[in-house]
Amino acid sequence: MNIVEIINKKRKKQILTREEIAYAVNGYVEGTIKDYQMSSLLMAICLNGMIEEEVFSLTDIMYHSGESLDLSSISGIKVDKHSTGGVGDKTTLILGPLVASTGVKIAKMSGRGLGHTGGTIDKLESIPGFQTAMSLEVFVDQVNDINFALVGQMGNLVPADKKIYALRDVTGTVESIPLIASSIMSKKLASGADKIVIDVKVGEGALAKSLEEARTLANLMVKIGKNAKREVICVLSNMDEPLGTHIGNALEVEEAIQFLKGNYEKDVYELVMTLGTLMVQMGLQVSEEEAKRLLKQNLDTGKGYQKLEEFVSRQGGNLEKIEKGPKIFSVKSIKSGYINKIHTLELGEIVRAIGAGRYQKEDIIDYGVGIVLSKKVGDFVLKDEELLKIYVHEKDMEIGRILDCFEIGVHYEEPTPLIYEIIK
Amino acid sequence: MNIVEIINKKRKKQILTREEIAYAVNGYVEGTIKDYQMSSLLMAICLNGMIEEEVFSLTDIMYHSGESLDLSSISGIKVDKHSTGGVGDKTTLILGPLVASTGVKIAKMSGRGLGHTGGTIDKLESIPGFQTAMSLEVFVDQVNDINFALVGQMGNLVPADKKIYALRDVTGTVESIPLIASSIMSKKLASGADKIVIDVKVGEGALAKSLEEARTLANLMVKIGKNAKREVICVLSNMDEPLGTHIGNALEVEEAIQFLKGNYEKDVYELVMTLGTLMVQMGLQVSEEEAKRLLKQNLDTGKGYQKLEEFVSRQGGNLEKIEKGPKIFSVKSIKSGYINKIHTLELGEIVRAIGAGRYQKEDIIDYGVGIVLSKKVGDFVLKDEELLKIYVHEKDMEIGRILDCFEIGVHYEEPTPLIYEIIK
Repeated sequence: MNIVEIINKKRKKQILTREEIAYAVNGYVEGTIKDYQMSSLLMAICLNGMIEEEVFSLTDIMYHSGESLDLSSISGIKVDKHSTGGVGDKTTLILGPLVASTGVKIAKMSGRGLGHTGGTIDKLESIPGFQTAMSLEVFVDQVNDINFALVGQMGNLVPADKKIYALRDVTGTVESIPLIASSIMSKKLASGADKIVIDVKVGEGALAKSLEEARTLANLMVKIGKNAKREVICVLSNMDEPLGTHIGNALEVEEAIQFLKGNYEKDVYELVMTLGTLMVQMGLQVSEEEAKRLLKQNLDTGKGYQKLEEFVSRQGGNLEKIEKGPKIFSVKSIKSGYINKIHTLELGEIVRAIGAGRYQKEDIIDYGVGIVLSKKVGDFVLKDEELLKIYVHEKDMEIGRILDCFEIGVHYEEPTPLIYEIIK
Repeated sequence: MNIVEIINKKRKKQILTREEIAYAVNGYVEGTIKDYQMSSLLMAICLNGMIEEEVFSLTDIMYHSGESLDLSSISGIKVDKHSTGGVGDKTTLILGPLVASTGVKIAKMSGRGLGHTGGTIDKLESIPGFQTAMSLEVFVDQVNDINFALVGQMGNLVPADKKIYALRDVTGTVESIPLIASSIMSKKLASGADKIVIDVKVGEGALAKSLEEARTLANLMVKIGKNAKREVICVLSNMDEPLGTHIGNALEVEEAIQFLKGNYEKDVYELVMTLGTLMVQMGLQVSEEEAKRLLKQNLDTGKGYQKLEEFVSRQGGNLEKIEKGPKIFSVKSIKSGYINKIHTLELGEIVRAIGAGRYQKEDIIDYGVGIVLSKKVGDFVLKDEELLKIYVHEKDMEIGRILDCFEIGVHYEEPTPLIYEIIK
């Protein structure tokens, strides 16, 4: 076999065999196939696509390129939840404890943020003392004891995806449904969960820009799951505005705490209930009604919040010591009207720029900084009324750039729905 | 500007500005843009194409990426001839001396072979003593004195093309009309000729697989020429069988000698007259009839051959000392019938394999080896009659592999024409 012939085949829109895909991916991990050859192949895949069989092979080969987590010593069904990444998306911080409080086992691995969306590990590390690294044994014990544990990278999982993902990032080959689906699913398969709920974000600030794209991606991931004998359910949710009000690491933890204490934004509640119901149904094998009832009950009785406290303290963190800011400024509207649109991608970029995110892997995050929205899409705002608060350290802010993120009009426009559809 | 954004633009089939193309190409030459980024961009260009304006910019930027030959001290119109590469294509060895003998100035730079087609420099180096390196001053003097000189690489011409071409070769991005056209034309522009005739080979063994493709390539190169104020004429010629009878370095020199002595194959004669007439018309600004008359006259009177001897001895070579073989085997047909097809690409690969070509840049060529066809397409062959002679050193031959190159049938099939069309 020859990598140039394989690239030529895909350039000519021919179907690659499993052996050819394995030759390319494994050769790349081993270094016999070069970066410049893999990037050329990736671009050919971006533009000429892959049929389902090719995506199944690619996913499976990446999945087996490294270790897998063996969670067999955790009793019961292990449920995982994944998000394709949004601005202000703190659902994992809420869903983990809340769903675990109903008895579902959640052994979760999360990533760090790179780009305009945050990563759950960074958010949790904004809690002083919180440990995101542990051995597999400790991890498994914690899930058996309290139903929920969350770690960063553990073991050498899916090295092929790590290497390919880093290359895609610098070669303009990120936007490809087959590559996105195989990247997400190879990691999920290697993480060892039995059943997986995936929140596929749709919109300007998301990986999937259109509903059509999100639908294709979701269908493909469900099929990859079936092919690998794992149940996958995708929820297509709106990312036309930030989720909830808080954006930034410590700020999002705070919103999660408030949520579990009963103070929640409508959109976060809707998304948490949708995803959570599916997770409980899968994990406890109960009806939709029963799953919803359990979630509502544990939210109302504070069991969800207790589980958050238990989880955080078990991993060494102290919720009392979270620091925000330290400086807080109020940003006021320069005109009256209805908020018709929030440019979410740009707002995410601003929060990244003030220190909440990274540009390079090595960048150090400023946990306390971020934005708290006082108004959301559909709200009416008066001139000089507060639009948002910005939490900063010592950096300069461009207030004009922030104000440009808000489209304010004289007419009320019905906001797009939060949940588009569920694909299983 | 940002290379990932530029790649993304081309991935989305958008038009790149001259500044963006310059940023990519110059950055790549300087090393700030990496191989893996350039190969990704090249694949996007292969699949999404370029409009004419983009190709003009790309060609011009590559042309100016290094030095250019200053041929202004050669009096008169300088005519160049280029071939996109064929099997057994020795026309430059014939056309150079023959056209120069009519008074046209030819200051030519040629390349070495890499792939299944040979390079003129390798062919000339099969002549003992022949020098293919000289200073620009000596080169210019020789053209002023005897109208013709031929060198290998001189100066740092078009470094962007060198680097990009090497990358395309290993990343499956060779087959792209915009990339092929800009690669050929940037080199031709930098080589300093005023007028250029390009022999665009069409067929299985050629860069352009179909007539349609060749036509597109030719039209584009003519337009690039116009844009750069150089006259370019393309001849589309058939590469469905090897040109003439001899394939291999010293063997092709021998066929060129025989041609200029008046012993020629019909197809070589037709191609030489077609290309030569255009070159003489361009160089002497005479009519087609007059150009043809001059060529025929100099062929008949032996002036063309005298010019070959003068040229070779001026560059230190000795035609008497050419060595072939040393071993010669006759390959006989295993059945009777008409030769309906010769698999030219495969035959070129066999000649390469027995030592006439390279697999790596560093490979040393066995100048004497090759094949001499006894039969061509359209000929009738008897069982056990000689199909070809093979000249080898000490290597093994796979006679079966050679025989497989010939399709012999019971019915005569009209061969395809040699010259398809002329595009100017």
